[in-house]
Amino acid sequence: MSEVLELNCRNAMADVVGEEHGISEAELADLQEKADEAHQHLKARRDAGELPFFHLPYEKELAEEILRFASDMRGSFSNYVHVGIGGSSLGPKAVHRALLHPFHNELPDDERSGPRIYYLENPDPDTVAGLLDFLDVSRTLFNIVTKSGSTAETAAIFLVVADALQKALGPKWKQNLVFTTDPEQGDLRALAREEHILTFSIDPGVGGRFSVLTPVGLLPAAVAGIDIRAMLNGAADMDRRCQSADLRDNPAYQFAALHYLANQRHGKTQAVMMPYADSLYDLADWFRQLWAESLGKARDLDGREVHVGQTPIKALGAVDQHSQVQLYIEGPNDKLITFLRVEQFRREVKIAPNFGGYRSYGYLGGKRLNQLLNVEQQATAEALAAHQRPNLTLHFPKVTPGTLGQFFFMLEVATAFSGGLYHIDPFDQPGVEHGKKLTYRMMGRDE
Amino acid sequence: MSEVLELNCRNAMADVVGEEHGISEAELADLQEKADEAHQHLKARRDAGELPFFHLPYEKELAEEILRFASDMRGSFSNYVHVGIGGSSLGPKAVHRALLHPFHNELPDDERSGPRIYYLENPDPDTVAGLLDFLDVSRTLFNIVTKSGSTAETAAIFLVVADALQKALGPKWKQNLVFTTDPEQGDLRALAREEHILTFSIDPGVGGRFSVLTPVGLLPAAVAGIDIRAMLNGAADMDRRCQSADLRDNPAYQFAALHYLANQRHGKTQAVMMPYADSLYDLADWFRQLWAESLGKARDLDGREVHVGQTPIKALGAVDQHSQVQLYIEGPNDKLITFLRVEQFRREVKIAPNFGGYRSYGYLGGKRLNQLLNVEQQATAEALAAHQRPNLTLHFPKVTPGTLGQFFFMLEVATAFSGGLYHIDPFDQPGVEHGKKLTYRMMGRDE
Repeated sequence: MSEVLELNCRNAMADVVGEEHGISEAELADLQEKADEAHQHLKARRDAGELPFFHLPYEKELAEEILRFASDMRGSFSNYVHVGIGGSSLGPKAVHRALLHPFHNELPDDERSGPRIYYLENPDPDTVAGLLDFLDVSRTLFNIVTKSGSTAETAAIFLVVADALQKALGPKWKQNLVFTTDPEQGDLRALAREEHILTFSIDPGVGGRFSVLTPVGLLPAAVAGIDIRAMLNGAADMDRRCQSADLRDNPAYQFAALHYLANQRHGKTQAVMMPYADSLYDLADWFRQLWAESLGKARDLDGREVHVGQTPIKALGAVDQHSQVQLYIEGPNDKLITFLRVEQFRREVKIAPNFGGYRSYGYLGGKRLNQLLNVEQQATAEALAAHQRPNLTLHFPKVTPGTLGQFFFMLEVATAFSGGLYHIDPFDQPGVEHGKKLTYRMMGRDE
Repeated sequence: MSEVLELNCRNAMADVVGEEHGISEAELADLQEKADEAHQHLKARRDAGELPFFHLPYEKELAEEILRFASDMRGSFSNYVHVGIGGSSLGPKAVHRALLHPFHNELPDDERSGPRIYYLENPDPDTVAGLLDFLDVSRTLFNIVTKSGSTAETAAIFLVVADALQKALGPKWKQNLVFTTDPEQGDLRALAREEHILTFSIDPGVGGRFSVLTPVGLLPAAVAGIDIRAMLNGAADMDRRCQSADLRDNPAYQFAALHYLANQRHGKTQAVMMPYADSLYDLADWFRQLWAESLGKARDLDGREVHVGQTPIKALGAVDQHSQVQLYIEGPNDKLITFLRVEQFRREVKIAPNFGGYRSYGYLGGKRLNQLLNVEQQATAEALAAHQRPNLTLHFPKVTPGTLGQFFFMLEVATAFSGGLYHIDPFDQPGVEHGKKLTYRMMGRDE
């Protein structure tokens, strides 16, 4: 494990930002007993096979199967369209954005690492029609991703896509489809059986927001030429670092404990994730679902009304220094900010020493963009700390499949463990049922 | 004015969501006196010419000048690159995303409404090098947008771009540049004079976050073939609707008052903007800067420490039903949510009636994606209201230059007026100075 994520907590601690807003060593020590219980409970459930997301880093055979599929697919198709929403799209999107060329689809064919890649998430007519306008569907593989098989948005887009394929390809329409769904249950599984459509399975015990290391995330990554073995190895590396119950030693537990104490003792109702790298912006979106849907709950495990849940917020450095940092520095002190910082970008860009007579340009000449971006991250973290605003920095040595695997696994463990601290179920989402039922009723589906 | 934005406040009111979380008529009536004062103050400053953003909708000659420039440019260049950050990019990006084809850059040349469009906002080496990798810079116009002329991120990218142009074009490098900056001050203006580079001016009295109707937003819109006259007319239409001090009559004041009361009386520390249309997502990002930077302040006008500021949050419907709505429904009741709803999309997409024997698909056949998306918006608004979560819906009859102009102007007036309610200065941003100074120091610039 040569490239290791490191969490720097210094600016979240009371000795830097003060007792009112920072976490003290005493608070962490006080929490250790509760942490030990949460750890034992999580470990027992893991050992009983009740939390299969823990085992995903070790599914080596599945990875090989996906790689074989991807290799075939890459020879046969020019475009890959991922049809899914929420947990079925946030993980794969984050992986693609992190690891592909930032203008992947616009590169010439021989400079691209795989097919052009598109997402259809929202049943937005302008987007769906807009893509089908110019896409050569005969050269396109559509992956329909829904664990239940019944997600309304995905079902609707699937019907539109299947119709376009039938019109373009006639009886061969099924060759351009793959389904990623439950291994046994649901209408998409049944349809796959009836129509003999190729499928990949999502373990029924793994919720959408924990599914990035299942075929939901691995297949689209492999299709784009990403080393999914390295991603799984990164997750396994992080698993090894997360064995201890010690809040100082286990990075996932440390992240969870600091957020829990910031929320419960210091009024930090908002958790901002702010990468200083365009490539990592969608990791913040992935985290946003994981944190909100897992920890935003009305009732605790004993049925008491608690209405807990930090609001996770995505921001982008340095861009949001010109949008949100004024509020973060001067507004209510109700946020815990986590920076994602990249030590070594893929590219080095030198700033040409030109117009050196101008004060606004002279100091930049001869430096690198890399340096400017990282200096801005450090300056923002220090300015926040100087205003008693707690913040963490998660250091990525590089953005690689391995460090992404570490990141996903660390945050998933942190979330599951946080469920224990808050005494809530981090794996359900009862609050969305009401809206679903209303939608079905208004769309004329029997409930 | 055939297409008029309408704000529906029903689900934010106490008679729907209850006294604890909703705004009562009595609270609005109590606020009217303060509103009258804020209105008089704003009107006096407007009449004294101190708030030039109010006059932007009426700058017809400037629009004609920009249209002439855009017409020339569209004949000469295949690509337009917008170099700017914060208030220099959020407005134009929102306009492009709202009105252009969702896959604009990937359309064949003869189906595109103008040049391919790119943004360089962040000094991210992977993004900047990634774009310059494949872009034919000789066929590209670069617009460098910074009012001060000294914004570090924009200055650094400008130096990289100028170097690439000099290498590709030799002495003709300046023909592919335009600067948008202060009419008199700053290093970019001085350089433009020295090098005879074409410029457009930003009124020094208009801050970045209020600048979308200056050349900052109008030029890139016109370059893409967008009807900027209609956008200005839309803003002027909204100006006419915002003349009254009556909180029930003036949509900008109503929006501001509901947010103010929700924040100050009902603990709504977060303001979510959630468009149900992919095309409007970047409006939420534009709003995010406007609201955060204008209203997030440590001190009031009398110098008292207040630390006010709602956190503006962007969300996207229906996508975030699968990510954030669990938290919005069950978590802390600390949010006021504003939906943006589009009554008529540009496209209609019928859902083919296929696989009708399956319960998950049968009910969708024969319906339209348009209907599904809007039904989901309504279902989410109603589910939130049923859980005492206040929400507003801003109805866009269509997404057009005119409705966008209305939107921008309404929210700018709402923000300026909110400054009066909170008794703070909505036009400064003192909190970002500390980080800027640290950055300059670490990059070796004299302060």
